[in-house]
Amino acid sequence: MKMRPEKYLRYLFLPNLLELFGTERTKEILTVNPTIIPIREEAATVIINAYVYNKAEVKEYKNISIEEALSLKCNDHIIWINIDGLRKDDVDQLGDQYGIHPLLREDILSINQRPKVDEIDEILFSLMNILYYNEEKNAIGQEQISLVLGKNFVITFQDDPSRDLFNALRERLKLTTSKTRGKEADYLYYTLIDTIVDHYFIVMDKLRDRIEDVEEEIVRGTNKRSLALINVLRKELIVLKRSIYPVRDVLSGLIKSDSELLTEFNERFYKDVYDHVVQAIDLVENYRDMIMGMQDLYISNVNLKMNEVMKVMAIVTCVLAPATVIGGIFGMNFQVIPLSGQHWGFWIAVGAMLIIPAWMLILFRKRGWF
Amino acid sequence: MKMRPEKYLRYLFLPNLLELFGTERTKEILTVNPTIIPIREEAATVIINAYVYNKAEVKEYKNISIEEALSLKCNDHIIWINIDGLRKDDVDQLGDQYGIHPLLREDILSINQRPKVDEIDEILFSLMNILYYNEEKNAIGQEQISLVLGKNFVITFQDDPSRDLFNALRERLKLTTSKTRGKEADYLYYTLIDTIVDHYFIVMDKLRDRIEDVEEEIVRGTNKRSLALINVLRKELIVLKRSIYPVRDVLSGLIKSDSELLTEFNERFYKDVYDHVVQAIDLVENYRDMIMGMQDLYISNVNLKMNEVMKVMAIVTCVLAPATVIGGIFGMNFQVIPLSGQHWGFWIAVGAMLIIPAWMLILFRKRGWF
Amino acid sequence: MKMRPEKYLRYLFLPNLLELFGTERTKEILTVNPTIIPIREEAATVIINAYVYNKAEVKEYKNISIEEALSLKCNDHIIWINIDGLRKDDVDQLGDQYGIHPLLREDILSINQRPKVDEIDEILFSLMNILYYNEEKNAIGQEQISLVLGKNFVITFQDDPSRDLFNALRERLKLTTSKTRGKEADYLYYTLIDTIVDHYFIVMDKLRDRIEDVEEEIVRGTNKRSLALINVLRKELIVLKRSIYPVRDVLSGLIKSDSELLTEFNERFYKDVYDHVVQAIDLVENYRDMIMGMQDLYISNVNLKMNEVMKVMAIVTCVLAPATVIGGIFGMNFQVIPLSGQHWGFWIAVGAMLIIPAWMLILFRKRGWF
Amino acid sequence: MKMRPEKYLRYLFLPNLLELFGTERTKEILTVNPTIIPIREEAATVIINAYVYNKAEVKEYKNISIEEALSLKCNDHIIWINIDGLRKDDVDQLGDQYGIHPLLREDILSINQRPKVDEIDEILFSLMNILYYNEEKNAIGQEQISLVLGKNFVITFQDDPSRDLFNALRERLKLTTSKTRGKEADYLYYTLIDTIVDHYFIVMDKLRDRIEDVEEEIVRGTNKRSLALINVLRKELIVLKRSIYPVRDVLSGLIKSDSELLTEFNERFYKDVYDHVVQAIDLVENYRDMIMGMQDLYISNVNLKMNEVMKVMAIVTCVLAPATVIGGIFGMNFQVIPLSGQHWGFWIAVGAMLIIPAWMLILFRKRGWF
Amino acid sequence: MKMRPEKYLRYLFLPNLLELFGTERTKEILTVNPTIIPIREEAATVIINAYVYNKAEVKEYKNISIEEALSLKCNDHIIWINIDGLRKDDVDQLGDQYGIHPLLREDILSINQRPKVDEIDEILFSLMNILYYNEEKNAIGQEQISLVLGKNFVITFQDDPSRDLFNALRERLKLTTSKTRGKEADYLYYTLIDTIVDHYFIVMDKLRDRIEDVEEEIVRGTNKRSLALINVLRKELIVLKRSIYPVRDVLSGLIKSDSELLTEFNERFYKDVYDHVVQAIDLVENYRDMIMGMQDLYISNVNLKMNEVMKVMAIVTCVLAPATVIGGIFGMNFQVIPLSGQHWGFWIAVGAMLIIPAWMLILFRKRGWF
Repeated sequence: MKMRPEKYLRYLFLPNLLELFGTERTKEILTVNPTIIPIREEAATVIINAYVYNKAEVKEYKNISIEEALSLKCNDHIIWINIDGLRKDDVDQLGDQYGIHPLLREDILSINQRPKVDEIDEILFSLMNILYYNEEKNAIGQEQISLVLGKNFVITFQDDPSRDLFNALRERLKLTTSKTRGKEADYLYYTLIDTIVDHYFIVMDKLRDRIEDVEEEIVRGTNKRSLALINVLRKELIVLKRSIYPVRDVLSGLIKSDSELLTEFNERFYKDVYDHVVQAIDLVENYRDMIMGMQDLYISNVNLKMNEVMKVMAIVTCVLAPATVIGGIFGMNFQVIPLSGQHWGFWIAVGAMLIIPAWMLILFRKRGWF
Repeated sequence: MKMRPEKYLRYLFLPNLLELFGTERTKEILTVNPTIIPIREEAATVIINAYVYNKAEVKEYKNISIEEALSLKCNDHIIWINIDGLRKDDVDQLGDQYGIHPLLREDILSINQRPKVDEIDEILFSLMNILYYNEEKNAIGQEQISLVLGKNFVITFQDDPSRDLFNALRERLKLTTSKTRGKEADYLYYTLIDTIVDHYFIVMDKLRDRIEDVEEEIVRGTNKRSLALINVLRKELIVLKRSIYPVRDVLSGLIKSDSELLTEFNERFYKDVYDHVVQAIDLVENYRDMIMGMQDLYISNVNLKMNEVMKVMAIVTCVLAPATVIGGIFGMNFQVIPLSGQHWGFWIAVGAMLIIPAWMLILFRKRGWF
Repeated sequence: MKMRPEKYLRYLFLPNLLELFGTERTKEILTVNPTIIPIREEAATVIINAYVYNKAEVKEYKNISIEEALSLKCNDHIIWINIDGLRKDDVDQLGDQYGIHPLLREDILSINQRPKVDEIDEILFSLMNILYYNEEKNAIGQEQISLVLGKNFVITFQDDPSRDLFNALRERLKLTTSKTRGKEADYLYYTLIDTIVDHYFIVMDKLRDRIEDVEEEIVRGTNKRSLALINVLRKELIVLKRSIYPVRDVLSGLIKSDSELLTEFNERFYKDVYDHVVQAIDLVENYRDMIMGMQDLYISNVNLKMNEVMKVMAIVTCVLAPATVIGGIFGMNFQVIPLSGQHWGFWIAVGAMLIIPAWMLILFRKRGWF
Repeated sequence: MKMRPEKYLRYLFLPNLLELFGTERTKEILTVNPTIIPIREEAATVIINAYVYNKAEVKEYKNISIEEALSLKCNDHIIWINIDGLRKDDVDQLGDQYGIHPLLREDILSINQRPKVDEIDEILFSLMNILYYNEEKNAIGQEQISLVLGKNFVITFQDDPSRDLFNALRERLKLTTSKTRGKEADYLYYTLIDTIVDHYFIVMDKLRDRIEDVEEEIVRGTNKRSLALINVLRKELIVLKRSIYPVRDVLSGLIKSDSELLTEFNERFYKDVYDHVVQAIDLVENYRDMIMGMQDLYISNVNLKMNEVMKVMAIVTCVLAPATVIGGIFGMNFQVIPLSGQHWGFWIAVGAMLIIPAWMLILFRKRGWF
Repeated sequence: MKMRPEKYLRYLFLPNLLELFGTERTKEILTVNPTIIPIREEAATVIINAYVYNKAEVKEYKNISIEEALSLKCNDHIIWINIDGLRKDDVDQLGDQYGIHPLLREDILSINQRPKVDEIDEILFSLMNILYYNEEKNAIGQEQISLVLGKNFVITFQDDPSRDLFNALRERLKLTTSKTRGKEADYLYYTLIDTIVDHYFIVMDKLRDRIEDVEEEIVRGTNKRSLALINVLRKELIVLKRSIYPVRDVLSGLIKSDSELLTEFNERFYKDVYDHVVQAIDLVENYRDMIMGMQDLYISNVNLKMNEVMKVMAIVTCVLAPATVIGGIFGMNFQVIPLSGQHWGFWIAVGAMLIIPAWMLILFRKRGWF
């Protein structure tokens, strides 16, 4: 009886059910409108970090103001400015100083933009999504990042100051042994993109855990919950697909680019990232195959269970039949009923009630019904 | 009992059902014949607006006659004539004056034409669909628009004078700070196309609302209504697909075009629109995935429910079985029935009627049946 | 009872059922063998019409013999010979005179050939299917047409003299204002192909009517008839696909062809037909989506109905249960039965029989089962 | 009762069932290993035929030994050697004399090789499958054929001496009017390939007959047999697909080849065969569509039937309900039972037993349940 | 009764069920992260074998240390070093000596890398998966192999010292008649790749055995076990697909490569391997078709069985109906029951109980229900 109230809850409190199926997630996923700028709110907090480095030295500027960032000089150093939290003014000021084309600024300030690569006026621009796994909501979160490469500088624009993927990279940059230190700005650019792509696999690992859980649940039994979980997984797959697939084009764009910003030496590194993206896409396809297999498994399992239940019903129905018929016959109130006066009449009737079903069961088993 | 009449209505009044499933919409969607001109009726009302502008000034001509439109001179201004409501005569007169090829005139006057781009005799011609969301019918409406770009002029032909997408654009044109004012006619051409493509996302947002509603309804329960809604959504998806997919080719045609009408500078803008169209296509695919997921969810849900109902039936049937058999046995009218003379006979029989089903229920639960 | 005999008919008279599902149509559709010439029977009747025209004049030769057709001279006229009904001899004689390569003659005389374009020895050869809608059989009929374009002449070969698509075209040709009159033979060639392609849309319109009917029928109810109709539609779709899809290649072949027979001016017109073919293919895809949607709708509808029937059964079974158990208990022939001597015993038992099911119904409704 | 034993047989004798579903065919189809040569057994019997011909004369050598074959001289004749039954020694000897590269010899001796075209050292090599329809097993059989074209000679290697496709071709070769006689060796090569491809259509015709049979059977009723037949057809489709699809590449390889062995004149003929292969592929796709349609039809039909059975059960259950309840009520052994003393009591009860179900049936019919 | 406990076990001991469905396999398959190096553990045991050969002689070095391997000199011999078991140090030392680029070293040390081909600094690098069939787990195992080709040397890196595919190849190498001996290093490279690809077919053969088993099981009956087997097969298919499909690109990369390491002569051999890979891919597609066919077969079979069970239930229910109704009627305790005083009353009632069901059964059979 312990189970009853829980079941009640499940059926009576609808909001839970909607949450289970992740319906509010649908809205999040399908709301994509890259064209309307005004929707974006100006970031409440902006964190700007900058690194000015060359082979010999690294200067670190943490949490500086936009004015300080603008005043940085490169003279044979490479500058990397990272901005967490976007404000139109900041982007415009930086854009003016570093020669970022207005169309690119629009892209930086856009929301839900498709990953893309562009090259205008000596500036190489890439836009990608950083993926996060939101443990709380059990959903994949995405944060748009714009990477701007120019002669001697890299500027990265991110939405959310609370998360940052590049900390390990920063630590490495401070080491004198760092490969990045001795190379051009485009090597830094590569390591940034590489870090983003590598993080996809970590996010997908989390999703894989859930796929396994769902499979286990389906194998154990088919209920509303496992159905909901498949549904939720299919939605996350859409997010994955949308964020990762276009990155292939971004990278093949970078590889094929004849920009002078990309030294030939680094092309090989971009090819390596490209291989990883292709593998990530393969993996998404594998996830899809797996989830589709689970969907089929679910339906087959439900059918199988129904089949089993039906068999029990059919058997019980059949077993009842003789008892009903014979009981009906001898239960009639006629004055003259054959056998009714006999001592052994009752036993004959009861015997028939038992022997006929037994014979039916043997027959059914031979037919392979259970 | 309150529910009964409503149910009755649903099953008895068929027209409602057909409306629910949007069957008359099928006709609208599948009727496509671009080849027959005579079907088009001459527009009852025609509204012609014209703008003659350059960097310095803008002249606005509202609601002018076709003759006035023909008399507009450009001398180093750019002319934009917008015609809402199509009449063959008007198109021919304008065509003669501005050198629009007869084949293009046919396209302008056609119905249900596939989006296309063409270039004949120094005229760049694009045909697209403006999408509207018809709140009343809960359906996507489409209106064909032809955009003609020539040296120093843009002419746009629309069907329906009652709707217009370009009002915001017109307001901006009147401002001296407007970017359009200082550029060639092809920049205006770009902004028009950009406006049309951006509006796709607004229409898709409306459809997204419906997808969410349907998902919620399916999660809550599976009935004829939710089935009808999926069906209706699938049809709207066909409209979306048909209108948006070919626009990609239109835009890649514009980008690759070596027409002298397109200044190299604007190519970048067309690439931007192209990116938006690709994203719109991605989104349509996402919608499709989502709707297919809902279809599967629907079927699984129906099966699951049937499974549950079956289980209850099976359990009740099994629980009844001993009562039926034992009641049948002791209800027979034999003169000699064992136990029948005993005081505790009745209680033994009733006890068996209760204990056997209880044992069966325990067995079933162990087998994980409910 | 009126319905019984009809149902009987449906199940007993199998031929009707096979006809309903259009099984004999399967044979027609899947019998494709382009390689065996001898199967073609010589046409019983042959109708030959010819037009010899230039800008100034048109000479019409109706129902002439093959010898008369061979004696036609062009001297700066354009000759169009149309042959309805194919005989090997006629084809060979014409082939010899006009220089049609033996391989092309084989194609002309073939059956069920795939639409193709070929160019041998100054002859441009196209083979397509004219589609008809057979109202009687409710099926799409196809007739193979070969179009031969040479310097100053066009020859068209059709199978069936009883149908002709080109009558409107002939009437137009006789007018002095006809565009065809003033142009080269390849313009006539274009108008012929255009007429054939445009007719696809008319045939598809007929099919669309049927799709609508079927959808309406499925929405109204799911029976063998609607299932059969879906099946029949899927078959017609195969015919449509097979006839229309390769025409795209035919037209792109014509557009890309560098044959001297095609004046550059006409390329634009072929592009227009190409656009129509692409749109027809889009439409076939839409039909396919729609029919697949109907198939899914059908299955969902059947499941939904079964679900409903099951619910009624489950409810009735549950409602019966207490009556069965209680009736069984008190129907037993024991000498000592509690309550049986009481006045109000009967009413207690009957009361329990009514109250328990009522309580069960309330419970079920709360669980959202009906 | 006549049917019972047959049914028994069907369920008891499992081997029959496995045969019905063609499970041993699965092994045949899926066993593909082109890399292991030793598996091939040396042919027991080898039949070698040769033709040495030019425009003027034909010499026929029937059933000659390999030594005789090797001694044939061409001096301005064309030699065609056909070998039915493969032995490694023979292939090596011929290979040495005619300059066939060891890799090609490996291909000739391989099993289950994918159709391919290759060109090594002045030798044009094609490998294809001849398809046969095995009437007995109702399955498509395949026999690998290797066609070697060199300067002035054609050598064909086949597996099975008991079947030969080229007899009609041989008869034609002996006629002085034969087109082949007056041309180069590559024309003979073309006619051989053409014969093989044309034979695909004959085999597919046989399969089509079976598709029709299965459709008819499914329309008539859904049983294990029709399910098995669909399953078997799907397997044959795999064979068809595997044998025919790569032949398209073979032919486009031949067409694009710039081998000096292929005279430009014959290219046109290869294009013709190419068209036939494309049409065969189209047809395979049509078959696939048709079989998938049948699969859907099957499932829908099963569901429909189950629906109907359920309805009958539901109706019977409902009709029984009042009799059970009322019979239960008045069958209880209480001393005081209302109406029981009345004359008309019995009739009231029986009346209720009849009127209630009648009313229920009217209600159900109104709801459109049957 | 023998079967009962086994059934119990199946349902009660969940771990077994999870194992049956291969859920822990899901984790193995979906865990792919090529980017994280530190995960790889240094191999416990490393086995290094080397062969230094030319036409004249072969020197075999078995189980040598890394230092010995580094000290091998080639002077006009070809060196093949094979390393089973990877340690970062070894790879770096070899890499330094033979000029293997750091990026390639990373690939060698990576896990779960996608098959790829790369060429850096006169080194041709291929990475592939060797497939094994793990008889115990009934799963396809994979081992990553890196093949490095340089001027006069080949180095192969494998994971697992306990398995080796190249033993037969080694034996052949020792023979003076070996083709490999007389050729450049790239021929050895080809034979290694060829051996790996050929082994795919052996692994697929094992999988084919399982496909056959599953099909047979499904044909015999539909239970949880066969469902689990399909599920397991679908997963193995993912592994196959992932390992084999990219190898096509590897080989086309090798064929198209203009590396000086590849002699033109060997291109032909690579084409041969390419053909085998294409055929393997075809075969994987066939497996997929087959498994999908089995999935459909499974569902149809379950439905069919349910249909049959339902029919039996419907028939039994119908047959019971008259007995229930008539028994109910005459079992009522009214004082006046018609016929009840009659001698033949009982027989009339029983007669009706038997005749009505008999008539119903005849009716059902005519309707084709069983």
